[in-house]
Amino acid sequence: MQSLQDRASELSGVSQDDAFEIDEINLYKKLGHETFVKLSTNFYNRVYADDEEWFRSIFANSSKDAAIQNQYEFFIQRMGGPPLYSRRKGHPALIGRHGPYPVTERAAERWIEHMTAALDSVEEIDADSKKRMLKFFRHTAFFLVAGKEMMANRRG
Amino acid sequence: MQSLQDRASELSGVSQDDAFEIDEINLYKKLGHETFVKLSTNFYNRVYADDEEWFRSIFANSSKDAAIQNQYEFFIQRMGGPPLYSRRKGHPALIGRHGPYPVTERAAERWIEHMTAALDSVEEIDADSKKRMLKFFRHTAFFLVAGKEMMANRRG
Repeated sequence: MQSLQDRASELSGVSQDDAFEIDEINLYKKLGHETFVKLSTNFYNRVYADDEEWFRSIFANSSKDAAIQNQYEFFIQRMGGPPLYSRRKGHPALIGRHGPYPVTERAAERWIEHMTAALDSVEEIDADSKKRMLKFFRHTAFFLVAGKEMMANRRG
Repeated sequence: MQSLQDRASELSGVSQDDAFEIDEINLYKKLGHETFVKLSTNFYNRVYADDEEWFRSIFANSSKDAAIQNQYEFFIQRMGGPPLYSRRKGHPALIGRHGPYPVTERAAERWIEHMTAALDSVEEIDADSKKRMLKFFRHTAFFLVAGKEMMANRRG
């Protein structure tokens, strides 16, 4: 059976090594808490206002404020900052917690489009950090698609 | 709907705050790489030799060496060390990656019994570290039971 990470690389076009280059530097120390808050706020402002109803509807049962906080706390924790997410909610458990949502390839691409625009909008994020984060995000989005496939196969 | 972390606390008897006290100190720096290798080796030696066949059989399709490496790399990464696990395998995704295994309450208790014995066997692990790790492990074991319940409800 193909591993989750290999399937994520195949779907995303981002190698495992490239995706986890985010760990070579401490992006939290480089960018600071407020930059992550700005990024997630910018991202979810786009998502909740998306013209594409099929994508917007994925988030319809979550509050925007909660979505923003969940995301920036996870990013901060994952990118070298304090474990804000786990202190409040426990393990990230990315595949498990995305269980309720239809994470398709199309949804992953749309997520990445909004995140790319959000990264471009937050001027505190330099080009190198942006490049690292985009590879990480792209690989992770398709890691979740791979997780969804795995769960569906198990179910069948 | 009850959150995963609240259900984990209910099942385990360990509060979220108590479980994540492991983040108050850097256990990796305190204990060192080799201590985690010893702990996971001791643990899986017990698991793969378990008299209780129902428990031992959960691990029958995995190699012991791979199980040991997966575990100590995750522990090291989670407890303040380098991201060894993610560099090799990507996100821990604890619930997703435990998808193939029957993580019942009984299995969680048996896992904890072996881990408690393993912690007691590795003399490099001081009492305070042991206490923190046990709370974290107990909460996490039942977090996985909670994840399994969540997935089963979604399926039904």
